[in-house]
Amino acid sequence: MRAAVTRDGELVVGEVDDPTPGSGHVLVRSLAAGICGSDLHALGDFAHFTGLMDSVGVPSLDPTADCVFGHEFCAEIIEHGPDTARTLTVGTRVCSVPIIVGATGVEQIGYSNKYPGALAEHMALQEMLLLPVPDSVPTSLAALTEPLAVGEHAVGLAGLRQGQPCLVVGCGPVGLAVIAALKGRGHGPVLAADFSPTRRRLAEAFGADEVIDPGAESPHDRWAAFGVAKTVMERAGASILGGEVTDPVIFEAVGVPGMLQSLIADVPPHSRIVVVGVCMHSDTIEPFMAVAKEIEFRFSFGYSPVEFAATLERLGTGVPGADLLVTSTVDLDGAAGAFETLRTPGEHGKILVNP
Amino acid sequence: MRAAVTRDGELVVGEVDDPTPGSGHVLVRSLAAGICGSDLHALGDFAHFTGLMDSVGVPSLDPTADCVFGHEFCAEIIEHGPDTARTLTVGTRVCSVPIIVGATGVEQIGYSNKYPGALAEHMALQEMLLLPVPDSVPTSLAALTEPLAVGEHAVGLAGLRQGQPCLVVGCGPVGLAVIAALKGRGHGPVLAADFSPTRRRLAEAFGADEVIDPGAESPHDRWAAFGVAKTVMERAGASILGGEVTDPVIFEAVGVPGMLQSLIADVPPHSRIVVVGVCMHSDTIEPFMAVAKEIEFRFSFGYSPVEFAATLERLGTGVPGADLLVTSTVDLDGAAGAFETLRTPGEHGKILVNP
Repeated sequence: MRAAVTRDGELVVGEVDDPTPGSGHVLVRSLAAGICGSDLHALGDFAHFTGLMDSVGVPSLDPTADCVFGHEFCAEIIEHGPDTARTLTVGTRVCSVPIIVGATGVEQIGYSNKYPGALAEHMALQEMLLLPVPDSVPTSLAALTEPLAVGEHAVGLAGLRQGQPCLVVGCGPVGLAVIAALKGRGHGPVLAADFSPTRRRLAEAFGADEVIDPGAESPHDRWAAFGVAKTVMERAGASILGGEVTDPVIFEAVGVPGMLQSLIADVPPHSRIVVVGVCMHSDTIEPFMAVAKEIEFRFSFGYSPVEFAATLERLGTGVPGADLLVTSTVDLDGAAGAFETLRTPGEHGKILVNP
Repeated sequence: MRAAVTRDGELVVGEVDDPTPGSGHVLVRSLAAGICGSDLHALGDFAHFTGLMDSVGVPSLDPTADCVFGHEFCAEIIEHGPDTARTLTVGTRVCSVPIIVGATGVEQIGYSNKYPGALAEHMALQEMLLLPVPDSVPTSLAALTEPLAVGEHAVGLAGLRQGQPCLVVGCGPVGLAVIAALKGRGHGPVLAADFSPTRRRLAEAFGADEVIDPGAESPHDRWAAFGVAKTVMERAGASILGGEVTDPVIFEAVGVPGMLQSLIADVPPHSRIVVVGVCMHSDTIEPFMAVAKEIEFRFSFGYSPVEFAATLERLGTGVPGADLLVTSTVDLDGAAGAFETLRTPGEHGKILVNP
């Protein structure tokens, strides 16, 4: 079958073996695949990427062998493998958590030498993980289930009280997913900050209550309006006097070195920072500042199958702005160009590949 | 009056002005003063120390002017200033949160050019903050209220469930304070790790359930016995299957560069790390590892007046091991030597100065 395959640090269109569905698997046709920031990083330096995976004991792959990316997808069942229940019939559109649990352990679809991801004509998926896509959800939206689930998980991890003020730093797909989950659960006020006008418009469409250009003003100047103490001494005073104390929650959705310390320096004391941007390089912080301000960091990763399913369900009832997130669609031959385009983000939301 | 005063990076014994108690103040005789790690850092590089304070907006001082350290103390009332209620009589032993709130803002006793700390014969304290020391508490123990309150606060911040397994990394005064607070609240099992045999013996006396020499074995090898998942995939599996998931809480009580990343690398996935050691230098971490393992950091600082009072009350009913924490006592002339001794920690708990 045809696939956009990762070879020697290049994304090339070529022929790869058609997957053979094993026990409990179904064969699907890939209808739409999103390109993720992790894919960009993996293509740019695959050995570094797999080294990171190895460092945390996550099953990884041989970066020198063929790999077909694509872990954000919507697909269509074309054939049931052996030992399948066949509850979902051929032709059903499906989403799935991008893993296959087999006798040899867990394989990550999209980061596997064995199971091709959605940047190919066909995939093998695990039948028990399949979720049917509601008729009301177009294929391009269904392919957003995976990235939106990342926001669902981060918001769950944040442990927000109703009415607690939030700031989303960075309005790429991850930040927008956080905004969608916040608004979907009735949280807010939600402030959102991004240097890109395109992304600020998307943040507005997703329902952010205030959208800020950090090049023009600091989002942290807005906190006072929500009763948040600005300084360590002011926060200590409020706490000692036993009055109500409002601490903000900040979602870091940029994921580049320097972000953590810039937040430590700028956020109000007692801020909770949910780190959902995945920074793949070493980073330097000033622990004393984090201590004196009693900052809290919750590092967020992925989602549970339950959160994934809830996200698809939410897409079925409508996620404001989601239809604007896909800013471009290409075919397999356009995939390499799309990766190149996304290296300078800001003008794009999500680019989908239709294999 | 005589004082051990900080001048040009040296601790020298000399004469300083006797404090004049202002409105609402009492004059006290300093009976015992503990030396804190922050004092060591401030003496070593006072400009860096005050710069750190400034960076977080905490009122600070002129590092080139005289400063009398000593924010951990027990004292005795010798005179009431103007506008005082005089509920506590002359001769009463007292402790106090080491601050004075005045018209010009908050001054930190022990880090102030205006109010001398306890490394002097006398101090001015704010009457409304005074706590009488129970007769059952010797002066040397009462002087430990402040450092033990740091542990009380950190344990409160940790948000532990009963039975959640804990590890205290570093068994200097801060780590021991954490152990005391954990055991005082009935938490545990409490593991404690320190390279120093002296400190491991203290950790045992404070009630740690298991004491580990990290030079001989990794404390993280013990988690499996408490049902903690070792790897990201194991933790994900346990969570997906809906079984009970036991996540550990680690208290970082060392406070030197490299500790945070060493914990990120070594702790089980989903660990909560309460950072109570105060690292005063830049530090480098690998955010990807923290993300993939979904680590949580809660940076802890100081204590509330309520926690301070609760700590003194707990000393009244008995804190196991606390009587062993003071490993040496010196007079003002011995203070500089004590600072020098503490630069190579490990053989000491707390050194008290009796002015």
